Amino acid sequence: MAILVVGSVAFDAIETPSGRRDRCLGGAATYFSLAASHFTDVRVIGVVGEDFGADEEAVLTRRGIDTRGIEHVPGKSFFWSGSYMKNLNEAQTLNTELNVFQSFSPKIPAEYRDSEYLFLANIDPVLQQDVRRKMPKVKMVCGDTMNYWINGHGENLARVLRTLDGLLINDTEAKLLAKQNNLVRAARNILDMGPKSLVVKHGEYGATAFFGESAFDGEACSTPFRAPALPLAEVVDPTGAGDSFAGGFFGYIASQPVLTPAAFRRAMFYGSVMGSFAVERFGTERLQHLRKEEIEDRFALFRQLSHLD
Amino acid sequence: MAILVVGSVAFDAIETPSGRRDRCLGGAATYFSLAASHFTDVRVIGVVGEDFGADEEAVLTRRGIDTRGIEHVPGKSFFWSGSYMKNLNEAQTLNTELNVFQSFSPKIPAEYRDSEYLFLANIDPVLQQDVRRKMPKVKMVCGDTMNYWINGHGENLARVLRTLDGLLINDTEAKLLAKQNNLVRAARNILDMGPKSLVVKHGEYGATAFFGESAFDGEACSTPFRAPALPLAEVVDPTGAGDSFAGGFFGYIASQPVLTPAAFRRAMFYGSVMGSFAVERFGTERLQHLRKEEIEDRFALFRQLSHLD
Repeated sequence: MAILVVGSVAFDAIETPSGRRDRCLGGAATYFSLAASHFTDVRVIGVVGEDFGADEEAVLTRRGIDTRGIEHVPGKSFFWSGSYMKNLNEAQTLNTELNVFQSFSPKIPAEYRDSEYLFLANIDPVLQQDVRRKMPKVKMVCGDTMNYWINGHGENLARVLRTLDGLLINDTEAKLLAKQNNLVRAARNILDMGPKSLVVKHGEYGATAFFGESAFDGEACSTPFRAPALPLAEVVDPTGAGDSFAGGFFGYIASQPVLTPAAFRRAMFYGSVMGSFAVERFGTERLQHLRKEEIEDRFALFRQLSHLD
Repeated sequence: MAILVVGSVAFDAIETPSGRRDRCLGGAATYFSLAASHFTDVRVIGVVGEDFGADEEAVLTRRGIDTRGIEHVPGKSFFWSGSYMKNLNEAQTLNTELNVFQSFSPKIPAEYRDSEYLFLANIDPVLQQDVRRKMPKVKMVCGDTMNYWINGHGENLARVLRTLDGLLINDTEAKLLAKQNNLVRAARNILDMGPKSLVVKHGEYGATAFFGESAFDGEACSTPFRAPALPLAEVVDPTGAGDSFAGGFFGYIASQPVLTPAAFRRAMFYGSVMGSFAVERFGTERLQHLRKEEIEDRFALFRQLSHLD
């Protein structure tokens, strides 16, 4: 089933202990789409400037991603520059230029209207809500957010949260959103805000899912689920790991006929799998050329890493 | 099979967001013994002062722990006072009084000589080495250490590491010991120092085991193993969680006929199980009164928390 994703398509300049790149194709929607494209059909809504050309478009279309919803406007694309020299777990933002993204107003092509899955990547909650409203019939909608929106746009964000099936954020964001330092109590607070399920990403320590009472049709699941991350000897570039997790996670869910607790657990593993690939090369390089077999081999490795038998 | 453990037996004063206790029975050997006693026979070597009376002794002996190796000398027992008010993940030490522990010289009772498993809890590596030498025939020896010994007593510690089957430390200690910030590379460095296996504890994120080539007889295991921690809505007192992990882990191993990769993985789970109980009450309270059934139920919960099927 097709996923519609709305979010940033950008260029990144990145420096890490493994090297630097002055211009990588990036943005949450890009990482998400590439990761999800290994599991299901993906349609993107975003905005780019004149610097986004045929080569960049081809990165997405080669993976079968529908880019008709990427609007091209005069000016430059969103640009982000970050450094991981001090800390591989947290980017230090050196520069952010919103450029054409500043006046982004998502438009949904008619061909996208039958999408059954919707992912609201980390953008202004007003825009998330706008897209959500325009897609009232989707089967499942998941979303992301960040400190900036939690701190300064809480009311708008609250409206989005009420409409979500699943929220995917990291530890810091979860604790900030819930105003609660204990992860379990933070998760309870957030589930009370609307999402039926919550996935908290712990970076190198994996991710934990918490479920509300209505997370699954006809089957309750009160036990959280923890997916490991792969211990890696070299993290080349952590950029996009969280978005790649989201893409693998939601891509797998969209590929399944029914959302059961077992499917959710496997989706968590595929999320971790795609995150582990993403960080092995700069930018989206690794996600572009992955083979199905590599994904399944790594899934098996995650099982070995975490299963008793 | 019996485990011999050498380490501190102490009194702790603890404050956490859940409350405070002015005098809890504590010390690494105490937590370790109580946790391990649920799986196998345990014998303790330590030193206490006149403040350690029949009530304290009974806490151990009620669990069948052999306390003949606890030496009673004039003076006061090791006393530690700590606060978790600022950070539940890391104790702020308010006061440490070594007291009788300052001149601790481990003596091994004749009745302990046939112990097949040896655990060297976090004490001066010179003493660890001394005990190790006096028990040349043990089947397996594991140990712990801390920043203080890594920073200031590296050469002595290196001699101990060469004689260990397994080392159990936390993330910070592993990275400090290896002089390497990446966990996988840190683990490789540490395995090169001697231990056949390394368990790195991540607190609320669980623990990861790394294996050297000779970790198991006749069976190689190159994939690390990651055990989750239980997400808890209230951590009453984190003191002793790591020692309880070690006790559950090594206690289970000592209860098994052969150390296989599968037994090691289950031991990691039992370690996490005992750590999760330890933090539910102040001091060793929860470990003292655990029933076998509670342990097995929680083991099953850990499986649900981490397994796909």
